[in-house]
Amino acid sequence: MSIIVQKYGGSSVATPDRIKSVARRIADRKDTGDGVVVVVSAMGDSTDTLTVLADQLTDAPPPREMDMLLSTGEIVSTALLTMALKAIGYDAIGLDGNQAGIQTTREHRRAQIQEIDPSRIHENLETGKIVVVAGFQGISEGLDITTVGRGGSDTTAVALAAKLGADVCEIYTDVEGVYTADPRIEPKARQLIELNFEEMAELANHGARVLHSRAVELAWVYNVPILVASSFTEKQGTLIHGGRNMEMKDKVKGIAHDLDVTKVTILGVPDHPGIAASIFSPLSDAGISVDIIVQNSSVDKLTDLSFTVERSSLDEALAVINPITKTIGASSLTSNTNLAKVSVVGAGMQSQPGYASTMFECLNKVGVNIEMITTSEIRITCIIHEEGVQKAIRALHSAFELEADIEES
Amino acid sequence: MSIIVQKYGGSSVATPDRIKSVARRIADRKDTGDGVVVVVSAMGDSTDTLTVLADQLTDAPPPREMDMLLSTGEIVSTALLTMALKAIGYDAIGLDGNQAGIQTTREHRRAQIQEIDPSRIHENLETGKIVVVAGFQGISEGLDITTVGRGGSDTTAVALAAKLGADVCEIYTDVEGVYTADPRIEPKARQLIELNFEEMAELANHGARVLHSRAVELAWVYNVPILVASSFTEKQGTLIHGGRNMEMKDKVKGIAHDLDVTKVTILGVPDHPGIAASIFSPLSDAGISVDIIVQNSSVDKLTDLSFTVERSSLDEALAVINPITKTIGASSLTSNTNLAKVSVVGAGMQSQPGYASTMFECLNKVGVNIEMITTSEIRITCIIHEEGVQKAIRALHSAFELEADIEES
Repeated sequence: MSIIVQKYGGSSVATPDRIKSVARRIADRKDTGDGVVVVVSAMGDSTDTLTVLADQLTDAPPPREMDMLLSTGEIVSTALLTMALKAIGYDAIGLDGNQAGIQTTREHRRAQIQEIDPSRIHENLETGKIVVVAGFQGISEGLDITTVGRGGSDTTAVALAAKLGADVCEIYTDVEGVYTADPRIEPKARQLIELNFEEMAELANHGARVLHSRAVELAWVYNVPILVASSFTEKQGTLIHGGRNMEMKDKVKGIAHDLDVTKVTILGVPDHPGIAASIFSPLSDAGISVDIIVQNSSVDKLTDLSFTVERSSLDEALAVINPITKTIGASSLTSNTNLAKVSVVGAGMQSQPGYASTMFECLNKVGVNIEMITTSEIRITCIIHEEGVQKAIRALHSAFELEADIEES
Repeated sequence: MSIIVQKYGGSSVATPDRIKSVARRIADRKDTGDGVVVVVSAMGDSTDTLTVLADQLTDAPPPREMDMLLSTGEIVSTALLTMALKAIGYDAIGLDGNQAGIQTTREHRRAQIQEIDPSRIHENLETGKIVVVAGFQGISEGLDITTVGRGGSDTTAVALAAKLGADVCEIYTDVEGVYTADPRIEPKARQLIELNFEEMAELANHGARVLHSRAVELAWVYNVPILVASSFTEKQGTLIHGGRNMEMKDKVKGIAHDLDVTKVTILGVPDHPGIAASIFSPLSDAGISVDIIVQNSSVDKLTDLSFTVERSSLDEALAVINPITKTIGASSLTSNTNLAKVSVVGAGMQSQPGYASTMFECLNKVGVNIEMITTSEIRITCIIHEEGVQKAIRALHSAFELEADIEES
């Protein structure tokens, strides 16, 4: 029996009517004869509602109890979706993270999936049942409930697909697929039919919200194809797969942007070996995720060092860096929160020159100043002021001829 | 270390502010030096909200998934109450039914607690933590989540108190204790300072809503004193204990009533051995709880047989009984839903005659007709028309001098 994993996000199960409609879609898929495992998120904004309750009780919700609290959201939607399937005559069973055998590390709020014991899922698939699994959650050694971080139901779905050897992991959401750019900013943005894991990982890591980057990276490692599609329409969606060569003829695949960029600059850093480690190890120890790091060339053995973090991490980052600034003898510390990140991504970029200069010229032509630049083999990212984002995206979308592209099928 | 178990009902934790206030009460109790275990119900009407969601999806919610769904209500309040305790500086841990070691039978919606593995609770008590346990739920063999039936958090609390050898199980609710009658019907009703298990079991079984009868019976078997008190005031409450002799000097202790009484009568039943079993075994097999059974004396080898069930069980009961009526050759089947039950209860009744006649005369004097009568050693129950309930209760309250009683302390 061939197995497929489907994942439905919170907006897809936000109301009883939507749950019924999702049940109908699952039933149709089941009718094709495959074994169907469904991962489900919490209904609509129920996770936010629970978070607000916790915030009314304490300024610092304890992570263990926060996980206990939030995990109930996915258990509710799991139970309801299972009921909806049974109500239309399809045998189904709902499993919470514990019952589904999802074993994680002990780090509450951001646990890692360590192993999945798929025996109960297999047993139920073999008797013809549709298996509905609560996303986002698992169980650590000692029976404690953990969650894998926000947006983590995607990760649950891909991990299950990998463990079960599923043919595909279908992620159903409120958009129709992956676009060349955010359609709210560039109305000419076009839906992509396919892209490869690396491209999707770069887009997700640099602001594309359609898919969680952890899920993409997991799919890449285990070579699980992901289909991203709308749970409200029957449109084709976007297939993300490992076919690297197929993609080479493409140039730029899409543009990602991220408005949540804060730059911290340490000025006048004495430039000697080990200085970077003395700054970034403490940040890492404090659990602060640093995105881009740029070090200017050294003048008189002094250098300026900049890095970006999410806005919500700024205060904590400054608290970590401030004493270090004094220890290492740097002259001062500044930060800027009005920044954004625009990235162009495409597997074809690695074999052909000129993409970077096209990007810089394009931004210059529309008067957008570049604050920082960073690149990977298949991506070029510019940090710019946030007010230039729309202008930049539209200009780049046109410069790289994204609206004109004819998709191969 | 002496251990006490407290239970807080849904209205006591209905809002974040009430949860904070409950946390303060628990903290004060913890300061007295006892080990404190707290059992908590779902917030306010959250169980009803979940039930409504399920009803929108299916006419017959599957019991396994219904338990999965409803159990989340108590997990939410457990997590929140634990957070509130930590926020005021008291170390605490929240445990769901599984983590608390509450093992039940597999009968969803009405599971029985089979055993409790208290090791995790003990470990946490020993390190000085307040242990908060989700009421109403447990786990069956095979990791399935079960619930012990509506109002079952009382049962969870008493079972834990019994297993932990607690000094007392304190049930905090939205009333100040057990009353001689429902104060909404008899304004002269007086709060009782104490009563014994048997009296409380009779009152609870016959309509007193303050405490679940299963919880009382469990407390009786394990001799766990129960204190029923308000979570909103500091008043003394009502102590329910095993001190039978102390109570003998009391006459009638209280009056219970129940408006949810439906009578089914099978007319013209051929009176031969085994006839009762042929009617009541199928009802029992169908899980229908029959309350009172009355069989009239036989005339010409034909008898009339009446029994009462809850209103919600009537349709199912008639579906079971209808074919049997034909099989046994009874002449017809009738039912009446406009009935109520009024009971007077008191341990002193068993040693002194005349209570029954006082009750019957009293009801007669105020023009309330008696449909059925049933008695136990310490209780007399009359089934009457529901419109007579208020009149009956007030008359009986006065006839048995309940408002005049001076409580022994």
